[in-house]
Amino acid sequence: MASSSYSNPPCAACKFLRRKCMPNCIFAPYFPPEEPQKFANVHKIFGASNVSKLLHEVQPHQREDAVNSLAYEAEARLKDPVYGCVGAISVLQRQVIRLQRELEATNADLNRYTCNEMPTANQFGRRIGHANDSYGHHQTPGLYYPSQWNN
Amino acid sequence: MASSSYSNPPCAACKFLRRKCMPNCIFAPYFPPEEPQKFANVHKIFGASNVSKLLHEVQPHQREDAVNSLAYEAEARLKDPVYGCVGAISVLQRQVIRLQRELEATNADLNRYTCNEMPTANQFGRRIGHANDSYGHHQTPGLYYPSQWNN
Repeated sequence: MASSSYSNPPCAACKFLRRKCMPNCIFAPYFPPEEPQKFANVHKIFGASNVSKLLHEVQPHQREDAVNSLAYEAEARLKDPVYGCVGAISVLQRQVIRLQRELEATNADLNRYTCNEMPTANQFGRRIGHANDSYGHHQTPGLYYPSQWNN
Repeated sequence: MASSSYSNPPCAACKFLRRKCMPNCIFAPYFPPEEPQKFANVHKIFGASNVSKLLHEVQPHQREDAVNSLAYEAEARLKDPVYGCVGAISVLQRQVIRLQRELEATNADLNRYTCNEMPTANQFGRRIGHANDSYGHHQTPGLYYPSQWNN
């Protein structure tokens, strides 16, 4: 075995940036050398400097979640340069709205039953058994932004 | 009126970057001077250079959507530095799963009715009228990543 002047290999970030990985490296705990693509992605989309700044801004126990959400956003943006992960938000929002409407209509049928008004079998046929159709609809998103970030 | 050597004010990006806004400025159509915060946000999160690169990579007719989704992501990350808009994805995913389960259960009740098995009013009571409870649940997300980006 060859001898080495340092005991650990550099983290994926320091290897990518071709710099010495110091013991207090902010990236090392979250960008292990076995996952080089994770850092390459966040570097391409956010820039190493912005990622470093963000990691210093959040609490140490939140850094792993922060890195994972950045990596997720970066990967989504690389796969879909126009919409990124906002595309997934649009798809999910439409799915929620459709499911809520479907549930309201199904509950209205049940209410009619409990009031002894019997809808015809065809009326039920519209909805029964369609619950799983709500999965897997993946259209080009129309950038239908969710309200929770507009506050 | 004072005379001016240029006819248009610089776009928000060029004003922020303190550079001359040229007629072919890649930012100008999407970062009007009236919306300075839009550029400040994407600059802070992605960096001006990365935004410019991305705009050059997508088709001209897609650039407005690209800028709007970047601005949305940037705003979400500034509001929630740990999860950014991935937090919204987690909330929506849990909402979809809960609605699907609720819909399946309600459809099962309807199926029992059509087979002339009458569930008790209490059984219905669990679900009837709860459709709107699916809105507005905003918990700390558990980073439950959607499958559509894992392909």
